[in-house]
Amino acid sequence: METRRAESFSDGVFAVAITVLVFNLLPIARHGIKFDELVRDAWPQYAGYVVSFLTIGIMWLNHHTLMAQLAKVDRITLVINTFLLMGVVAVPFPTALVADNLAHGTKVESARLAAVVYGLLLIAISIAYSGLWMYVAANQDTLGARKIRTPLEATIRFSAGLLGYVAGTLVAAFGSPYVAMVIFAAIAVYYLFDHLPDPTGEDGGPPAAGVPGSTSDYDGGPPAG
Amino acid sequence: METRRAESFSDGVFAVAITVLVFNLLPIARHGIKFDELVRDAWPQYAGYVVSFLTIGIMWLNHHTLMAQLAKVDRITLVINTFLLMGVVAVPFPTALVADNLAHGTKVESARLAAVVYGLLLIAISIAYSGLWMYVAANQDTLGARKIRTPLEATIRFSAGLLGYVAGTLVAAFGSPYVAMVIFAAIAVYYLFDHLPDPTGEDGGPPAAGVPGSTSDYDGGPPAG
Amino acid sequence: METRRAESFSDGVFAVAITVLVFNLLPIARHGIKFDELVRDAWPQYAGYVVSFLTIGIMWLNHHTLMAQLAKVDRITLVINTFLLMGVVAVPFPTALVADNLAHGTKVESARLAAVVYGLLLIAISIAYSGLWMYVAANQDTLGARKIRTPLEATIRFSAGLLGYVAGTLVAAFGSPYVAMVIFAAIAVYYLFDHLPDPTGEDGGPPAAGVPGSTSDYDGGPPAG
Amino acid sequence: METRRAESFSDGVFAVAITVLVFNLLPIARHGIKFDELVRDAWPQYAGYVVSFLTIGIMWLNHHTLMAQLAKVDRITLVINTFLLMGVVAVPFPTALVADNLAHGTKVESARLAAVVYGLLLIAISIAYSGLWMYVAANQDTLGARKIRTPLEATIRFSAGLLGYVAGTLVAAFGSPYVAMVIFAAIAVYYLFDHLPDPTGEDGGPPAAGVPGSTSDYDGGPPAG
Repeated sequence: METRRAESFSDGVFAVAITVLVFNLLPIARHGIKFDELVRDAWPQYAGYVVSFLTIGIMWLNHHTLMAQLAKVDRITLVINTFLLMGVVAVPFPTALVADNLAHGTKVESARLAAVVYGLLLIAISIAYSGLWMYVAANQDTLGARKIRTPLEATIRFSAGLLGYVAGTLVAAFGSPYVAMVIFAAIAVYYLFDHLPDPTGEDGGPPAAGVPGSTSDYDGGPPAG
Repeated sequence: METRRAESFSDGVFAVAITVLVFNLLPIARHGIKFDELVRDAWPQYAGYVVSFLTIGIMWLNHHTLMAQLAKVDRITLVINTFLLMGVVAVPFPTALVADNLAHGTKVESARLAAVVYGLLLIAISIAYSGLWMYVAANQDTLGARKIRTPLEATIRFSAGLLGYVAGTLVAAFGSPYVAMVIFAAIAVYYLFDHLPDPTGEDGGPPAAGVPGSTSDYDGGPPAG
Repeated sequence: METRRAESFSDGVFAVAITVLVFNLLPIARHGIKFDELVRDAWPQYAGYVVSFLTIGIMWLNHHTLMAQLAKVDRITLVINTFLLMGVVAVPFPTALVADNLAHGTKVESARLAAVVYGLLLIAISIAYSGLWMYVAANQDTLGARKIRTPLEATIRFSAGLLGYVAGTLVAAFGSPYVAMVIFAAIAVYYLFDHLPDPTGEDGGPPAAGVPGSTSDYDGGPPAG
Repeated sequence: METRRAESFSDGVFAVAITVLVFNLLPIARHGIKFDELVRDAWPQYAGYVVSFLTIGIMWLNHHTLMAQLAKVDRITLVINTFLLMGVVAVPFPTALVADNLAHGTKVESARLAAVVYGLLLIAISIAYSGLWMYVAANQDTLGARKIRTPLEATIRFSAGLLGYVAGTLVAAFGSPYVAMVIFAAIAVYYLFDHLPDPTGEDGGPPAAGVPGSTSDYDGGPPAG
């Protein structure tokens, strides 16, 4: 299958999944709302919305970076991609779980349980990404549109995110679920601003020349590592 | 109508329908969640999510395989496609029905009824697919972008899925609804890994040469059967 | 603005709106479901789902037919299109209203009210379509990718749908809301199978030659009237 | 990253977000509906639907205008865009809040609070737009597909919307929340009909020649200011 079709379907799934997050906010809206209900009681909902929005946003960016390396996709790629999307679509569920159980007055057992489920889903998605990446790197002669320069470095980078999620989940299980959520948020912000290689190569190597006026189809180079 | 537009609309519908499945998980999230509620009570929700996700994912793949054969679509194709999408969009409903009625403590009549409805919808979608396929194969001179090599074998393969769904529905009606759901899951996994021909021809015949560096528009050959 | 972008956004809105219809089915799924609840009590939900699905499906087809005539879209076109989409997105609301009030045991006043609201929304959407069509026909020198052959006949055809919706709404208000829903369903089926001109011209004039093997960008001729 | 992919994902998010608005209407549909419930009690829901639909519709148009200037997008653009989309997706939440608290019989404190939250979200989105615009204007040598003629005038125009939202929010906080909602509606209508520059340059300068029969990729000139 050509990459464009798989990308287009995946993009649609990401776009809907990220928008479903707002459904966790809608129940806050009630007749005769009070300031306390809106701010003090509902803050975990807003925090969950922001963290999950950034997380899915970065997953989309990662997904694009990966797909941009490929000229076509084969059956195995599509199977791994389906499991990856199954994880991404599920994100609003632990987000709701966390938001419902991190408000004041919740037992710490419930908060812990919610944060662990959140972490486990992120771990599962990370594993699917790593699997997709490793499969693609190992089959780049068949699938790749261009030579992937530094598969090892990129693999390490993907694994770093996975390790961060594992650390956060352990903190949720044995330490504080609030600290765990801060860790998950920090990972999202870190990847947002700093580390994901742009396929057009702005982050390393000579930048791709942006030819004014052209509607370039050039997807850029490989992740610079 | 050109195929691209019909594909693009259908892709959007598939992407939203597959994401709607998460709405069956959201009610599990409650204030003060307990481990038992999250795992023992809710497992049919997770199982339903996974089976239906894989099933819709494969339907999308099937849909793409079919559409990739066509240079354009006519009125009849669009009508059949509309009924097909009407079935795909409905999948989250019997999924919810099954998940609500397969938990422990449900009467077997309700579980049976839910699994039968699930099976009947899958049968209806299969019939729409077979109809679409037979119409397209019969009109390939007008619609086809390329000669379909083995319409008979492909028709048999589509029918095999239909027979599997009929068998599962009969098991649900007269045997165990749990076994029926396992059959539906097995059909999804089977098609995911093994049997659907890739339009780029990886599964049979000489593979299409993946020319590195090109953003190929080549959709591949016909299903190899 | 180029037509492609406006089409792509509109397609997305149509795809989500048509999928939202399933949310009217989800509440039927309950723990311990009985056959009577699933069939006798819920049939108006299924009927509403089918009628509204076909109606939105045809609206999408109509929308594509119209847009395929245009080389670009101007500000007024986009404004009318926004109001049109505002109507299409709202369709699940009167669908829910009708489904909740056509079951046995509902007072006829409620059923009547629901069917009238359903009809009024379809009328509003039809007026937006007619407005869009008349504006486009009047400005085809500026907007049109090709000469529109028979704007008068096409205008009459669009108006016929509008008249049908007005008739159905009057029947809902002063006669039977059930008959009104049958009329709305009949209009959908009629347009689905018989009357909407295909932009590739299959319905009239010489058919566009489907060149096997090409991925044609050809959008076909104008509506043949 | 090429602009097309970022646009396509953003378009999907806008399309879903605008459609989510209908979920605020669905609870109005009840068994045994009465005219008063449907009209007198529910009018704030309809008003909220219309105002937010137009507002998101214009935001999409603005977004397209901005993106059409760019040949490619860099990391900072994507980060600002993610925050922008985070605001757009959230719009259905304050819409529900306003609709639930502007009906007759609500305390003015709740109505005020709801309208202030609505205004604050619009302000946040406006700031994200202004930020995106200023970043793009400052980096047009790297990102721009064409020379942006009048960044200053365009910046002023974007800021005018922001000022309007600030004014509306102040009115909501210290005056009437109803008047505030009228102001937000008026801003949407004003931008819809009058002020946003069309990328194809219809609003100023020589109009782009619409070449009949071609499927032009031409995105038009810069905003005329």
